[in-house]
Amino acid sequence: MRMMMDAVHENRLLGAWARHLPRPAAQIGCIHESDAELLPMGHGQVLALTVDTVADEITAGLYRWPETAGRIAVVASLSDLAAVGAAPSGLLLSVVLPAGDPEEAQAAVARGVALACERGGVGVLGGDTSIGPSLSVTCVAAGLVPAGEALVRVGAQAGDTLWASGPLGSGSALAAAALLAAGGMDEDDWQPSARLLEGQGLRGIARACMDTSDGLIATLDQLGRLNDLRVCVETPVEDLLDTRALSLARTTGLPPLAMLAGPHGEYELVFAVPPGRVAAMRRMAAGRGWRPLWLGHVEAGSGLTFGSRDVDGALVRNLAAQAGQDPLRAAHELSALLA
Amino acid sequence: MRMMMDAVHENRLLGAWARHLPRPAAQIGCIHESDAELLPMGHGQVLALTVDTVADEITAGLYRWPETAGRIAVVASLSDLAAVGAAPSGLLLSVVLPAGDPEEAQAAVARGVALACERGGVGVLGGDTSIGPSLSVTCVAAGLVPAGEALVRVGAQAGDTLWASGPLGSGSALAAAALLAAGGMDEDDWQPSARLLEGQGLRGIARACMDTSDGLIATLDQLGRLNDLRVCVETPVEDLLDTRALSLARTTGLPPLAMLAGPHGEYELVFAVPPGRVAAMRRMAAGRGWRPLWLGHVEAGSGLTFGSRDVDGALVRNLAAQAGQDPLRAAHELSALLA
Repeated sequence: MRMMMDAVHENRLLGAWARHLPRPAAQIGCIHESDAELLPMGHGQVLALTVDTVADEITAGLYRWPETAGRIAVVASLSDLAAVGAAPSGLLLSVVLPAGDPEEAQAAVARGVALACERGGVGVLGGDTSIGPSLSVTCVAAGLVPAGEALVRVGAQAGDTLWASGPLGSGSALAAAALLAAGGMDEDDWQPSARLLEGQGLRGIARACMDTSDGLIATLDQLGRLNDLRVCVETPVEDLLDTRALSLARTTGLPPLAMLAGPHGEYELVFAVPPGRVAAMRRMAAGRGWRPLWLGHVEAGSGLTFGSRDVDGALVRNLAAQAGQDPLRAAHELSALLA
Repeated sequence: MRMMMDAVHENRLLGAWARHLPRPAAQIGCIHESDAELLPMGHGQVLALTVDTVADEITAGLYRWPETAGRIAVVASLSDLAAVGAAPSGLLLSVVLPAGDPEEAQAAVARGVALACERGGVGVLGGDTSIGPSLSVTCVAAGLVPAGEALVRVGAQAGDTLWASGPLGSGSALAAAALLAAGGMDEDDWQPSARLLEGQGLRGIARACMDTSDGLIATLDQLGRLNDLRVCVETPVEDLLDTRALSLARTTGLPPLAMLAGPHGEYELVFAVPPGRVAAMRRMAAGRGWRPLWLGHVEAGSGLTFGSRDVDGALVRNLAAQAGQDPLRAAHELSALLA
């Protein structure tokens, strides 16, 4: 298992922390095994805790507006709560404001945070502010889930069906549009939400769940590795894409699969459901006003396929990770690989 | 009250967040009113949550070793739990590693984190790692305190006695030594601990509590403002100082009071105790093997005195806040003011 996980550079860095650091004895699960950390509080409650920093996206020029940094830091951390089925209790912010005009950046970050809080039905408990060379927004989310009902990434079994909470690719499309300077996508046009109600509804139904914040291919690759299963996507790629991702792929000639490979994903949930629970899932989702998108299934074996095509998940993720250093080169290599 | 608080620049920036952002309805207390955020969990439990980032100290050259950044990020967040009387449940880390040699920095940060975890009896739940221009370590601490027993910064009454959990000034002495390049203090020599057992012991005894992470003068000034009281320190300054701070003041000729003015404090607790509970406090502390250091008392009025000398807390804090931009100038101005 260790070798399987370590084929992906990001897992290697995370694995190193786990080897160096003591973990609380009471914690549920091991490293990589859930989107948020899970800690039993007694009295039938489990605390879900997660932290996300938005900094790279600002340095890379992907987010030009401090509003976006504030808004997405909140959505990213709430999405981790959604993926474990937790209801949010409150947020902490730790913000580094740029020395030039900290008050203006603060007001803009706060506007984005307030908008995402309103949509998520959550408030900010407090936090920490400092002045530094460039803007960075860290958001901590705390939530609660009933004991025994938290969704984790492990537990899928061969034969389980695989689903997403909605169409995919808008996060990669935003990144690609910024990279191509096509001017095709505005930050105001990118308004992802954390799938909090969807995640809570999947308690007792999904057997493994993870959000797509690193893109669909990374999510499926990670779920396959953690569950020691082969992931088979059967729905055609075009039918998985968000209308904007599809339209960008068409106008630019980028391969549609590349829209699912970017390390800048969106905040949908991907989850495994045993065949016997699919009807219950459909009823639950219809009652809450959303429609799960069928992806395919998992089976004995390893690897990742889209239709009859094998996709090397580790290669895609390691290429995508280079986007931090050389985004254009990473994008060209990904496009060539997935054409 | 708003005008009193806003005389200090740092309070102004924090106050702006509070005006912009929604707060969870269930949260205990208002902004500034406790070292950690307090959220009722039901079943007689309150969750304490806090976040601290170590970045400025690295940029300023105060911490040259990644070990120190990891160690102090953990101590700083555990100290916030100590100041509300909470027992730690677990930590989250969000670390930005420098692009040059991330693995080496990661191993060093982890050594410092592991050491502080061992001393605090706590483990790391998980977190987030990214690569960026320079090292920054953010630590989130979660803990529990019985409902109704959390220590907050407000609630002191005229006539209460004022105490510290131990001698003060070592944090400022470290900063001053680094500033003077006197080579007098090594990072390995600076091993502050969070006063977790002390804070838990003060439940039901202290009426207001806060840690000295911004230095004693800032702590007393903030407690005075929040409680609308005058703070009178009666113990001579020399008797409040840690042996190292005292020795640095003697060898350099810096005014002893300047050792209590630096924005780089240590992690002691300062707390108010009604006269009728002093005997109970002494018994509790003796049973746990520590000795409270008497500072003085609070009375009706406003302001801060050391013996017969008035100290302008807002002026000291606003000067100290400049240490981020121009540390030598700030140090000279503080020394002149407090000579």
